[in-house]
Amino acid sequence: MTRASSRFLTAHAADLPDTIPFVGPEALQRVRGSPFRARLGANESGFGPAPSASAAMRVAVDGNWMYADPESHELREAIAVFLGTGVGNVVVGEGIDGLLGLTCALVLARGDTVVTSDGAYPTFNFHVTGHAGRLVKVPYRDDKEDLAALLDAARAENAKVLYVSNPDNPMGSWWSASEIEALIADLPPTTLLLLDEAYCDTAPAGTLSPIDMENPQVLRYRTFSKAYGMAGARIGYCVGEAGLIAAFDKVRNHYGINRVGQIGALAALQDQDYLTHAVGLISRARTRITRVAADNGLAALPSATNFVAIDCGRDAAFARRILEETLARDVFIRMPGTAPLNRCIRVTAGMDAEVELFAEVLPLAMRAAHG
Amino acid sequence: MTRASSRFLTAHAADLPDTIPFVGPEALQRVRGSPFRARLGANESGFGPAPSASAAMRVAVDGNWMYADPESHELREAIAVFLGTGVGNVVVGEGIDGLLGLTCALVLARGDTVVTSDGAYPTFNFHVTGHAGRLVKVPYRDDKEDLAALLDAARAENAKVLYVSNPDNPMGSWWSASEIEALIADLPPTTLLLLDEAYCDTAPAGTLSPIDMENPQVLRYRTFSKAYGMAGARIGYCVGEAGLIAAFDKVRNHYGINRVGQIGALAALQDQDYLTHAVGLISRARTRITRVAADNGLAALPSATNFVAIDCGRDAAFARRILEETLARDVFIRMPGTAPLNRCIRVTAGMDAEVELFAEVLPLAMRAAHG
Repeated sequence: MTRASSRFLTAHAADLPDTIPFVGPEALQRVRGSPFRARLGANESGFGPAPSASAAMRVAVDGNWMYADPESHELREAIAVFLGTGVGNVVVGEGIDGLLGLTCALVLARGDTVVTSDGAYPTFNFHVTGHAGRLVKVPYRDDKEDLAALLDAARAENAKVLYVSNPDNPMGSWWSASEIEALIADLPPTTLLLLDEAYCDTAPAGTLSPIDMENPQVLRYRTFSKAYGMAGARIGYCVGEAGLIAAFDKVRNHYGINRVGQIGALAALQDQDYLTHAVGLISRARTRITRVAADNGLAALPSATNFVAIDCGRDAAFARRILEETLARDVFIRMPGTAPLNRCIRVTAGMDAEVELFAEVLPLAMRAAHG
Repeated sequence: MTRASSRFLTAHAADLPDTIPFVGPEALQRVRGSPFRARLGANESGFGPAPSASAAMRVAVDGNWMYADPESHELREAIAVFLGTGVGNVVVGEGIDGLLGLTCALVLARGDTVVTSDGAYPTFNFHVTGHAGRLVKVPYRDDKEDLAALLDAARAENAKVLYVSNPDNPMGSWWSASEIEALIADLPPTTLLLLDEAYCDTAPAGTLSPIDMENPQVLRYRTFSKAYGMAGARIGYCVGEAGLIAAFDKVRNHYGINRVGQIGALAALQDQDYLTHAVGLISRARTRITRVAADNGLAALPSATNFVAIDCGRDAAFARRILEETLARDVFIRMPGTAPLNRCIRVTAGMDAEVELFAEVLPLAMRAAHG
């Protein structure tokens, strides 16, 4: 930041850190000077969108001279039918990331407390910090978000917001619907629960608690970026009580949704057969990654997501060496950023060829990391 | 807003108005129960993107399982080459709207003063209000933004931000490069100029002042939504001094840009021959709309944009009647929201068939409005 430019920033903006949550694989490739051969780091789905959704998107290109409907009405209506809610219970945004930022804009005054898990989604933390919230981080317990401790912290710290992801990222763990229902029932009345369900589509039956449209204490976030396989489309949505959902209209970029993505998401939602098929492929890839880990003497964690966290069995430095040796062999993966989660690497349940490349590279990376 | 939900909103958010800047044509159609036959209200370009850009977008659909590069590096590099700036002088966002919102987040503390023209871009005002800025509105003069009065107001009110659009919306007027350069030279040192150049591509030669990458007092906003004909793609960019541009990374939704749009914008930028062709078609449509106005005894204002403001010659109520009678005949147009600009209607320089439909409908609408 130059002195000259910073005079226009607010004191708060000037103080914000320059660090960003996730450097993209494209930036890594630019530094390396060569492309990755496998892209298994961003929890995208290489199985892609439904062919019906891709076809709809190709057709939609012809209408790209027009803005998309700023109310995303047809998509919201379809989501509402799918979930059994009203259209007024749904707001569409530029991915869950965008919606989390808007949520912070709506509910966080300077210094308001936000409770999250230590090592949970860094992009959420980025938005909390951006909106001058105060983060309180609760350790994971047995590689799961610790619901009881999160609730205790929310009470003790008088939290305005509690963030929980189910299933979680980066560990792939999950809680049952009844455990989430108990959490909701026990929320302090002044705490808003943000329930990030980005990975819900790959979770076992019994994971998703029912949606209570009348409860103004819970906002739930879902996306077309993961199991639906259309991360590039940037379509996520938030579901909640109608009054709170309506408030997003006060701050959102009304014309921020791209037309091709909006139309593609509608088609994708309407092709649940394909989603079932894709979830099957993801599940198979998870099993394969788990076996690859075992073949190398490592323990894969159980996963309800489209990725697998692999416990490398030693410290963060060792996991980082494996990560770097894997990247050096042209396979893009990531690792958690916080202890003790950072004894793991995280591998996306992607396409067969890419997972097989990981299987090929891992033993070499481990040997190099040991050596 | 229900009582129950509002308890989670900040006091500021709860106080924000429920009104939104632009209700989309889709919402109007839902109320009408029937589609428009001509879409000439949102200043989209019916001439569409370059065929090369459409082709690139159709191909890009296949890669939509991947997030777009969060740094939009290739697009920013191409824009930088096109403008003769460095890549660090360019940030890409979800349309100019999105970038204006981020700018407000970066530079407006509660109560900071923002000077704009009375009747200028309402979406900008929406973001200023959303970020607790204080709007000071300077009247248009002779249907143009009044640069001298804007500068006086910026000085008198100790403005943090001055918003100027060149060419302007909703009147279509413009200032020469030298007049804008004089404005920039005379800025109070504590005022940041936001220069909205959404319509720059259709302006006559000599309208665009040179870009000074070293000047931290000016941010310029451009888009692929207007002359480039890809409003649905939601790709805009902001150009300025590198330190100030870098600050956007502190608050932006890093993964907010859709992949198809990002790739399409790059292809569109690289097809300047098509842009020249499209600008010619837009210019011809402007001329045609001007003649239609004259044929009906109305005066079209000179326009440097892809729309024409038509002075209906009487008061706002009369213009509104013409607007409504035109809408009732299935032709979507808009009108300015503020006196004295709201004696006009605003018609997009769109495709021949749609403009001819407007030509057909206008005399009927006028007769009904008179009657």
